[in-house]
Amino acid sequence: MFILINLKAYDCDPIEIAAAAANAETSQNVNLAVAPQLPSLDSVSDYNIETWSQHIDPIDYGSHTGSVLPESVAAAGATGTLINHSEERLKLADIDDAIQSATRAGLSTVVCANNPNQAAAVAHLGPDAIAIEPPELIGSGTPVSKADPNIVEDAVAAVTAVDESVDVYCGAGISSGEDVAAADRLGADGVLLASGVAKSDSPRSVIEDLASGITS
Amino acid sequence: MFILINLKAYDCDPIEIAAAAANAETSQNVNLAVAPQLPSLDSVSDYNIETWSQHIDPIDYGSHTGSVLPESVAAAGATGTLINHSEERLKLADIDDAIQSATRAGLSTVVCANNPNQAAAVAHLGPDAIAIEPPELIGSGTPVSKADPNIVEDAVAAVTAVDESVDVYCGAGISSGEDVAAADRLGADGVLLASGVAKSDSPRSVIEDLASGITS
Amino acid sequence: MFILINLKAYDCDPIEIAAAAANAETSQNVNLAVAPQLPSLDSVSDYNIETWSQHIDPIDYGSHTGSVLPESVAAAGATGTLINHSEERLKLADIDDAIQSATRAGLSTVVCANNPNQAAAVAHLGPDAIAIEPPELIGSGTPVSKADPNIVEDAVAAVTAVDESVDVYCGAGISSGEDVAAADRLGADGVLLASGVAKSDSPRSVIEDLASGITS
Amino acid sequence: MFILINLKAYDCDPIEIAAAAANAETSQNVNLAVAPQLPSLDSVSDYNIETWSQHIDPIDYGSHTGSVLPESVAAAGATGTLINHSEERLKLADIDDAIQSATRAGLSTVVCANNPNQAAAVAHLGPDAIAIEPPELIGSGTPVSKADPNIVEDAVAAVTAVDESVDVYCGAGISSGEDVAAADRLGADGVLLASGVAKSDSPRSVIEDLASGITS
Repeated sequence: MFILINLKAYDCDPIEIAAAAANAETSQNVNLAVAPQLPSLDSVSDYNIETWSQHIDPIDYGSHTGSVLPESVAAAGATGTLINHSEERLKLADIDDAIQSATRAGLSTVVCANNPNQAAAVAHLGPDAIAIEPPELIGSGTPVSKADPNIVEDAVAAVTAVDESVDVYCGAGISSGEDVAAADRLGADGVLLASGVAKSDSPRSVIEDLASGITS
Repeated sequence: MFILINLKAYDCDPIEIAAAAANAETSQNVNLAVAPQLPSLDSVSDYNIETWSQHIDPIDYGSHTGSVLPESVAAAGATGTLINHSEERLKLADIDDAIQSATRAGLSTVVCANNPNQAAAVAHLGPDAIAIEPPELIGSGTPVSKADPNIVEDAVAAVTAVDESVDVYCGAGISSGEDVAAADRLGADGVLLASGVAKSDSPRSVIEDLASGITS
Repeated sequence: MFILINLKAYDCDPIEIAAAAANAETSQNVNLAVAPQLPSLDSVSDYNIETWSQHIDPIDYGSHTGSVLPESVAAAGATGTLINHSEERLKLADIDDAIQSATRAGLSTVVCANNPNQAAAVAHLGPDAIAIEPPELIGSGTPVSKADPNIVEDAVAAVTAVDESVDVYCGAGISSGEDVAAADRLGADGVLLASGVAKSDSPRSVIEDLASGITS
Repeated sequence: MFILINLKAYDCDPIEIAAAAANAETSQNVNLAVAPQLPSLDSVSDYNIETWSQHIDPIDYGSHTGSVLPESVAAAGATGTLINHSEERLKLADIDDAIQSATRAGLSTVVCANNPNQAAAVAHLGPDAIAIEPPELIGSGTPVSKADPNIVEDAVAAVTAVDESVDVYCGAGISSGEDVAAADRLGADGVLLASGVAKSDSPRSVIEDLASGITS
């Protein structure tokens, strides 16, 4: 199981969370990653923790003021990137281009999708993984694995039918090791979460609890 | 005169350019700033040079995956930000909000505008400066001060009539000290440039030439 | 006073409303206009009522599938258009271009703005009128003239200071003749409203009430 | 074979083209449709010709000033709509919603895609047809059937593998009956074209030539 902690634009300390994740990873043999705001990529990646970008733009080197070049994210130490998060949705053609641009820069790609049909659609575009996140559950505190377990199983089935090599993650409402274990049982290869860690008074204990849900 | 070097998404070394700018500033008593890709803000700001963001989003702390929080840019050492560059144009209401968001985070604001009317419009929204950049001249190698000197003078007059405290910069096609001197004569308080430095084989000599155009 | 009835995408009968507006205009000597969905422009304009577009794109003839050419709107009988409604906000440069495109096609222009500063900004771009509509009051049933009368007076003052020839309308929460009269007293040259008419069980009586608020 | 004539925002007479298409359909037993600017839907649909929208928004009845409600398009006589044309690209989630919104309003849906992978992706979202249009060939005068015949065959294979009930059209560069016949041979169920008709001095003869390419 892979646990990707998205810090969004929350008022949190990315370094504290990176350190906590690095520590949990060492002690519990899990695979964690942290996706901070872009200006913090460089300092987060100095910790012994996988660092991800929250977004990249489907661009190559050139005149793109204000856009996020995948190579600049990789140079700062990121090894992967979210694409098409529900708070940063992309046009279909741009998802296609963004996956290619990120891959060119050596980044792993996780593309978000709202439902199993969209997940199957994205599977044709060659991402490394697809995260199924029902928008109505994001930040709700109710994990998708409880609110609608079928959606996770359906997404796994739909994506696998298109391309077996694409992993499926689930997100929205995940906040505990129990939620991670439930996602695992439903066939997910990983989870995405955000507020559960970033808005916690004790990110370290939340991360340790999350990691404890992973049995293998 | 203020010289803002926008590195866009060019294939250049932001550190080399930051070091060159810091050196020119020391030796020639000019005011330079460098705006790199966001993941490089932190390392560029370690040099003794003013560091700017190419863009910020009109947001506060919260659930904004992939957006650029002004506070995260400031935490990485940026002291100012471009807003509404022609390659990252914003809605009018978002320019208004972005100026307020950036100011809240302690960032100076330079809002780009295509023509004197748009510059006068932006002056009502309280930015620190407005950069007039005719889109057709960006990257052209022909400075606006030569191609259309009236546009600079008109922008200065239009902005000043609205709010005397707002500075006016000019951009597009600037690449030499001569261009900087011409902008100065036309009443501009600063210049923006990008490819002239970032695509040069010798950014250091271009920066020194730019700085030499400043007489006061 | 000018009363512009925006039908948005409401489930209403544009012809019934057009007929009611035409009738009220005849009997009460007011100036009314109806802005239906684009496919209804042609049939609404067959009534003796001013017909407006809810939006146009800043384009000229050409390859713009799905965009709204001002000339196509005019050919269907529209004589004016909203621009930058809070539900269809435009980039600053596009507001500038849209005003010019609409004017080229012979359309009157009303540009929406959220607050007096944005209204003053837009006044530099040459529209025929500016509508001040605080987004938080749209559809609220509380008229801006009551919730925040200063905002209307401030908008009138700000716009007039920039360009005396630009009219100022106010919108958001208007639903009665009393609201129209209040807007008139605050210096507005017209009002915009939507749900008050379009979601009413009796659009005709609402329109007659609105028109009754106009004393001159 | 289905021939969909997209008039974009070209300076042409939609009625002349509708009449020519109706005439060709009668005499040559082909299936033609015309997609005019939205304000012309009503008058074009008065002719005996299938009328299409160039775009709809993924919305239901409500507060959506300036957006295109599928029901308003249907009320004006449209029976189908393009979605995600390369000049009006949509976010993935909005393509999903737009297909459902259009279907709810009784409209047939043709979703455009740049390449076979994107076409396969869209096939998971339940459209009636997918149009493969390589952006670089749009308006080029070189039909995709000649420039890159594999792309048409690949799209047909990719879409059929996902959902056999989804038709595949091809577009970009189509201007003659010969091009239509070539598309037919490559397995396409229809063609999209625009400038070939709309920018012609004699739309009627172009339409008749197009229709002549259809043998069954």
